[in-house]
Amino acid sequence: MSANLTLHESYMARCLALAAQARGRTSPNPLVGCVIVQAGEVIGEGWHPQAGQPHAEVFALQAAGDNSRGATLYVNLEPCNHYGRTPPCTEAVIQAGIKTVVVGLIDPDSRVSGSGVARLRQAGLEVITGVLEAACRDLNEAFVHRVLYQRPFGILKYAMTLDGKIASRSGHSQWITSETARHVVHQLRAESDAVIVGGNTVRQDNPSLTSHQASDHHPLRVVMSRQLNLPYPAQLWQTDIAPTLVLTEAAPDHPVAQTLQNQGVELQTLPSLTPTTALNVLGGRGINTVLWESGGILSTQALREGMIQKIWAFIAPKIIGGQGEATPFRDLGLETMAEAITLERVQWQPIGTEMLLQAYIPPSQYAQGPFPAPNL
Amino acid sequence: MSANLTLHESYMARCLALAAQARGRTSPNPLVGCVIVQAGEVIGEGWHPQAGQPHAEVFALQAAGDNSRGATLYVNLEPCNHYGRTPPCTEAVIQAGIKTVVVGLIDPDSRVSGSGVARLRQAGLEVITGVLEAACRDLNEAFVHRVLYQRPFGILKYAMTLDGKIASRSGHSQWITSETARHVVHQLRAESDAVIVGGNTVRQDNPSLTSHQASDHHPLRVVMSRQLNLPYPAQLWQTDIAPTLVLTEAAPDHPVAQTLQNQGVELQTLPSLTPTTALNVLGGRGINTVLWESGGILSTQALREGMIQKIWAFIAPKIIGGQGEATPFRDLGLETMAEAITLERVQWQPIGTEMLLQAYIPPSQYAQGPFPAPNL
Repeated sequence: MSANLTLHESYMARCLALAAQARGRTSPNPLVGCVIVQAGEVIGEGWHPQAGQPHAEVFALQAAGDNSRGATLYVNLEPCNHYGRTPPCTEAVIQAGIKTVVVGLIDPDSRVSGSGVARLRQAGLEVITGVLEAACRDLNEAFVHRVLYQRPFGILKYAMTLDGKIASRSGHSQWITSETARHVVHQLRAESDAVIVGGNTVRQDNPSLTSHQASDHHPLRVVMSRQLNLPYPAQLWQTDIAPTLVLTEAAPDHPVAQTLQNQGVELQTLPSLTPTTALNVLGGRGINTVLWESGGILSTQALREGMIQKIWAFIAPKIIGGQGEATPFRDLGLETMAEAITLERVQWQPIGTEMLLQAYIPPSQYAQGPFPAPNL
Repeated sequence: MSANLTLHESYMARCLALAAQARGRTSPNPLVGCVIVQAGEVIGEGWHPQAGQPHAEVFALQAAGDNSRGATLYVNLEPCNHYGRTPPCTEAVIQAGIKTVVVGLIDPDSRVSGSGVARLRQAGLEVITGVLEAACRDLNEAFVHRVLYQRPFGILKYAMTLDGKIASRSGHSQWITSETARHVVHQLRAESDAVIVGGNTVRQDNPSLTSHQASDHHPLRVVMSRQLNLPYPAQLWQTDIAPTLVLTEAAPDHPVAQTLQNQGVELQTLPSLTPTTALNVLGGRGINTVLWESGGILSTQALREGMIQKIWAFIAPKIIGGQGEATPFRDLGLETMAEAITLERVQWQPIGTEMLLQAYIPPSQYAQGPFPAPNL
């Protein structure tokens, strides 16, 4: 958010800041913040804290009370117009006597898109749309992606050396990056609904995949293991810290399945376990963001299947040497450098002497199949 | 060079700026700039343009003329006190009637180190040393390294994708980086005395290794090829653009040797061709800076033998995938991540959406053998 915002944009920016506080906690719902302004003064604010709780508009209207009459309501996502776990926000807004509604992003779900705005206009309210639309879309990029593709938004995180290795030849990856960079990863986990790894990572690294001290909110930890050849004990089976889901092709009566379930680990058997079927399962659970913390083999498969939308790459200024195994991606079927996947919206961020890149996979890489490229 | 320099430091910074203009052209000599100040006014400036030409002090004294009497002379490197291709600068400084000499760095050659300062003091001049010493050492890091180790300072340059590949699986490396980044490489070549590659790079990329439009100064292009299994024709054999030296173990009557020599390529046969013996040859020719533009195998050998002091790594935000061959370094014998070589004095510089890292190999990695770690 740069300087020189209009008044509408300033209040919308405030909505985004309010909404962002609930990162990682609202799935399957979006991140929504709301501000109510009367005669140039903020008289109510609210945000959606988590699914099952009231929507942002309801909190803001409660805070504003009777002063809402004739006021302007700002909200980063189109107010809902249907009965879900809560009554439609459009009715609450109308009943409170709001005069003007300023909306950032229209609901991306084509089945309901625009109906909230239409209901408000029908009731005689003035509605302004598209204020800070790009920023509103960015904040809810994961929710928008899940609505459009019916699968979670995939972020691949990896840390590599300056010679492109994610581990030493003996499989060691702890630690490539500094404590500071690892803390950034813990924050990213706190803002994700689920973290996903393959059995190799469990065997090699025995990770905990929690947000550690960065947050009291931990993601669902998901392990993909077709054969259930998993080590015991392992940090991921300590389900008193955070929940763990193992996706497998093995039958539920497999002895390892029994052992893990006794630890409180949830198991789900799929006829075919791939990044796509795994994310279908997680999408079905209403998960918006999945963080891939996978090794080279699984990351390659996930990228090829279009299950990765964004990359967070940490680069440490050290050299380990080696060949083969410890690379972020294996063969992607690309022959010449001209065919390389060029990332979009690239941002570099220094973290001490290390560097973090955040960038997007071009939608053309994953926008085939039943869910065409979104026109957002 | 930050703000808040003292007066001495400001004039020394000016010496460095003057000296730097001759980057890539002075070998075997160092980069030297000189400023003469009388009553707060600069009355003469000079720099050493290339070997065989007068030293910086001589140019500055010529410019100042008779006004030198009683003036202060600034120079980033201790004035020479011996007869080389030119008479000793110390005598010229004394005869000009300079009252005070401010020196950045004492000559790193232990055989003459300090003798210039001693001669000036003996003649009654005031001498101040160590002004902006670190910056003076940095400017002449290559010269200092060659004097201490009797071999050129090695810079390894490579460009890699965000997944750590320096080529696609088919061997394509043109182009990983943008035109802007490649122009930075051309400038780096213009500031280097020699560029060195292996036969693989000639066969795969057919590079020209010149500074293109960045400068009219091109480095000596050096090819390491034990068997002389080199392609013909190749851009490197066009010696009307820039000189080319092929180092080999093959006998001088090898048919390829004859062909190349007919093109004006220089050939030198060594009993054993390694990065060390190659840099011994180049050090013997008085070359200060060598730019390694080698592929993974040769870079690994050069690093293991201590022939690389600094790294320039360009990172492009693209993904190519693949395994094995196309990595900046192969096996370095490091087992765990804790053994990784941690680079020092790390600087990141954005170039469009790409990133350039400049950093140093720790001297402990190469400072064994007959030339101990310098205490500078």
